[in-house]
Amino acid sequence: MDLQTALRQLEELQQKLFAFRTASSALYLDGVTVAPRDTSEGRGVALGILAGEEHKLFSSAQTGELIAFLEQHKEELTAEVARQVVLLRRSYDQLSRIPAEEYMEYAQLTNQASDVWHRAKETSDFELFRPALEKLVAFQKKFAGYYDSTKAPYDALLNEYERGMTMDKLDLFFSTLREKLVPVIRAIGEAPQVEDGFLRKTYPVEIQRKFSDYLMDVLGMDRAHSTIGETEHPFTLNFTSQDVRITTNYSETDLSGSMYSVIHEGGHALYELGVDPAYDYNCLGGGVSMGVHESQSRFYENLIGRSLPFIRAIFPKVREFFPQQLEGVTAEDFYKAVNKAQPSLIRTEADELTYCLHVMVRYEIEKQLIGGTLEVKDIPRTWNALYKEYLGVDVPDDKHGCLQDSHWSGGMFGYFPSYALGSAYGVQMLRNMEQDIDVWGPVSGGDLSPVTAWLKDKVHKYGCLLEPGDIVKQACGDFDPTVYTDYLQDKYLRLYGLK
Amino acid sequence: MDLQTALRQLEELQQKLFAFRTASSALYLDGVTVAPRDTSEGRGVALGILAGEEHKLFSSAQTGELIAFLEQHKEELTAEVARQVVLLRRSYDQLSRIPAEEYMEYAQLTNQASDVWHRAKETSDFELFRPALEKLVAFQKKFAGYYDSTKAPYDALLNEYERGMTMDKLDLFFSTLREKLVPVIRAIGEAPQVEDGFLRKTYPVEIQRKFSDYLMDVLGMDRAHSTIGETEHPFTLNFTSQDVRITTNYSETDLSGSMYSVIHEGGHALYELGVDPAYDYNCLGGGVSMGVHESQSRFYENLIGRSLPFIRAIFPKVREFFPQQLEGVTAEDFYKAVNKAQPSLIRTEADELTYCLHVMVRYEIEKQLIGGTLEVKDIPRTWNALYKEYLGVDVPDDKHGCLQDSHWSGGMFGYFPSYALGSAYGVQMLRNMEQDIDVWGPVSGGDLSPVTAWLKDKVHKYGCLLEPGDIVKQACGDFDPTVYTDYLQDKYLRLYGLK
Repeated sequence: MDLQTALRQLEELQQKLFAFRTASSALYLDGVTVAPRDTSEGRGVALGILAGEEHKLFSSAQTGELIAFLEQHKEELTAEVARQVVLLRRSYDQLSRIPAEEYMEYAQLTNQASDVWHRAKETSDFELFRPALEKLVAFQKKFAGYYDSTKAPYDALLNEYERGMTMDKLDLFFSTLREKLVPVIRAIGEAPQVEDGFLRKTYPVEIQRKFSDYLMDVLGMDRAHSTIGETEHPFTLNFTSQDVRITTNYSETDLSGSMYSVIHEGGHALYELGVDPAYDYNCLGGGVSMGVHESQSRFYENLIGRSLPFIRAIFPKVREFFPQQLEGVTAEDFYKAVNKAQPSLIRTEADELTYCLHVMVRYEIEKQLIGGTLEVKDIPRTWNALYKEYLGVDVPDDKHGCLQDSHWSGGMFGYFPSYALGSAYGVQMLRNMEQDIDVWGPVSGGDLSPVTAWLKDKVHKYGCLLEPGDIVKQACGDFDPTVYTDYLQDKYLRLYGLK
Repeated sequence: MDLQTALRQLEELQQKLFAFRTASSALYLDGVTVAPRDTSEGRGVALGILAGEEHKLFSSAQTGELIAFLEQHKEELTAEVARQVVLLRRSYDQLSRIPAEEYMEYAQLTNQASDVWHRAKETSDFELFRPALEKLVAFQKKFAGYYDSTKAPYDALLNEYERGMTMDKLDLFFSTLREKLVPVIRAIGEAPQVEDGFLRKTYPVEIQRKFSDYLMDVLGMDRAHSTIGETEHPFTLNFTSQDVRITTNYSETDLSGSMYSVIHEGGHALYELGVDPAYDYNCLGGGVSMGVHESQSRFYENLIGRSLPFIRAIFPKVREFFPQQLEGVTAEDFYKAVNKAQPSLIRTEADELTYCLHVMVRYEIEKQLIGGTLEVKDIPRTWNALYKEYLGVDVPDDKHGCLQDSHWSGGMFGYFPSYALGSAYGVQMLRNMEQDIDVWGPVSGGDLSPVTAWLKDKVHKYGCLLEPGDIVKQACGDFDPTVYTDYLQDKYLRLYGLK
């Protein structure tokens, strides 16, 4: 093999992987948006086969030889191609360490577990989900060894979602959060609550749809390359940097639910739309890690979207959409209402202040589950105890407790911490951004383009060219959770008149 | 290889082919429905790769050996598996006769030609499309030889869309149509025209959407397994017999356009929904031929949907949807309006009577193009002359003439006759159905289930298990175009008070 041939094969391999991923994404998207109700079987068959073909292609001896050849010619590769080889090597090693039968068995398990979890959640029946969850945990422990046998199992899993992340770092991170934030939560719990009843008036879905279009315009999303759809759970899906979809979910009696879903998913989408298009059909495309992705979505959602300057900028327009519902409401009232903080049961509905305590509960449980010091059967009891301890709330049933999230049913252990890390990264990015450019002047005028340009330059455009840690470093500086906790303390004590 | 192994491999092969087709369909569906405007590039890359992988899989030596092995064990196979082997053999032989480079070149050509045709149609610029069309015709002539070198080239192409169809049969068919129908068209052209102005009032799209749902209910479509979407050109797409999508296109100033699109596509969908689910993941799934498919869609659209008993049955409900627009209009007025016959320029907007003359123009041109007696550059002149001769209309420009249809840009030569054949098959099926069951009693009450049950039993359930000719034979008896022309003569002479 000569280098030219190898480079061509590398491009072909990555294009094929792109095609399989694109196909699976299109089937998934169809399934959760427009597909008729009883049609999952056919999609399941097709998705299973596509996954199998992708796996076979990726883990083939030929792919292994190609990667090895390119590694031997490392010095002759461009930085982009060298990075592709590094990333492909990692995935190749992982995949080829998982025996094919285990891989297939696991794929079937997650497929079934997802159904079982749905039913268990509906009926609040943890015992129904328990056998599947036990198998999933056992698989994850095994997989952790395949991923990196030199690490503690949970560290190996964390590393999959946020490369370089460890329990040591997270313990420090979360203990800082707990120490700094629990007193704030207590203090505002005793202060008079803010009025947010007007957010629960009747907001016709048809007008909310138009409002979403307006929000996407304010975010500066290019509608020739992005759309919004509707699904039970909002998400962002990227085919390429030129084709990104977000979804939201409308409730007629909740204005802020969809509003902040759109801004949150819009943040994910702006990241994907900002990746260098040269990476569209190779493994450098797409956001670099879950943590960095959440830093972008939560940046737009909370740091911009729930800021007073932003709300002042858009509020006249919000009132145009909903004049009756918001009669007598000021921008300041609106700002307070969308920032109301209150310990609650459901993570996805939590406010900015208490959110990361929800994440911490899941982190503690996962750490013990994978570490072997907690059994699956004891999850509900532990969950409820931790919610009482961190958030002071009583969990009435598992539907509102340990069955609320889909992640574990999909085999995602080690993912949750990304949500809290992303929030913390975001605040550090904001502080650095404020050093570099005028953030709040433009935002006060409803112009988010300088913000997006800064993030594109420091984060988006790189796709997966750099390690997540390096992206974080160049956008945030040294990681320091107190920047995040200081921000939350300051915002919430002011908002509740305690500072 | 033992038989058990071969049967397992056969099932796997067909499941993989199903997965590739499903993936491509999902990408296509996304592209024409919800995808953002400027996103075709990524889908194009993915679709190209998936088609290449499918081709590679299908035309591999291993597939050839598998088919040959099963042919040697023909006696030991079930009827279903034996038929699968026959169908796979046909496709395999065709595919393996097309050199891989030609196949790729052709795939790229049709991809580009589709874009060029769109632009050419928009600007009514035949010369823009001409070079691509010349290449397409040249490819088709070559492919005809790969398909079946023992046949005249155009017969080989016809055989692809309606197995067993030949120019001899079609010449006879079309000459009967011309002879019988042209006088009817002349006669009603001299009779007083029917009033259909009320169909062009303002019909809000939002209400038309609800009307479509009603029509799908009347058709008896199972909404857990079928949906309706919106696209520029209506179509039906089947993933499996359990998952079928139709689309329509709404115009606010045209009630009957979408109404009859829904019923037409609904007919295609009922066919697909009626195929034996045992064929879902193998090559027996789906409708058997274009002609038989059109027989079903045009059956529901015209023979049922444009019949007086059906219109009497649904008209009270139609008036509930559009009380103001249809004030003072009776079921009989509505019946006449949706059956108004008038020679026109555009095939897809043509009435039931003149429709097949549009098809005949295309048949004559294709026959000569592939036969070598007509050059591409002379298409516009020939087209316009034939429209004048058969329909008596002057074609003002190529946009309203030979550039109106997408088929040729997609490489489909030999497809058009299926439309006319399907219409003729349908009438013969109706005559047989009337012998077997009470058709019009239930239809007068808005109940189409006996009709659908009959068609399912004679046509739908077989999928591709039988040859199209055998399906036609068992549902229609011997093919006799005068059954069709008698039906049209009778219907239209009565409708225009000439009988």
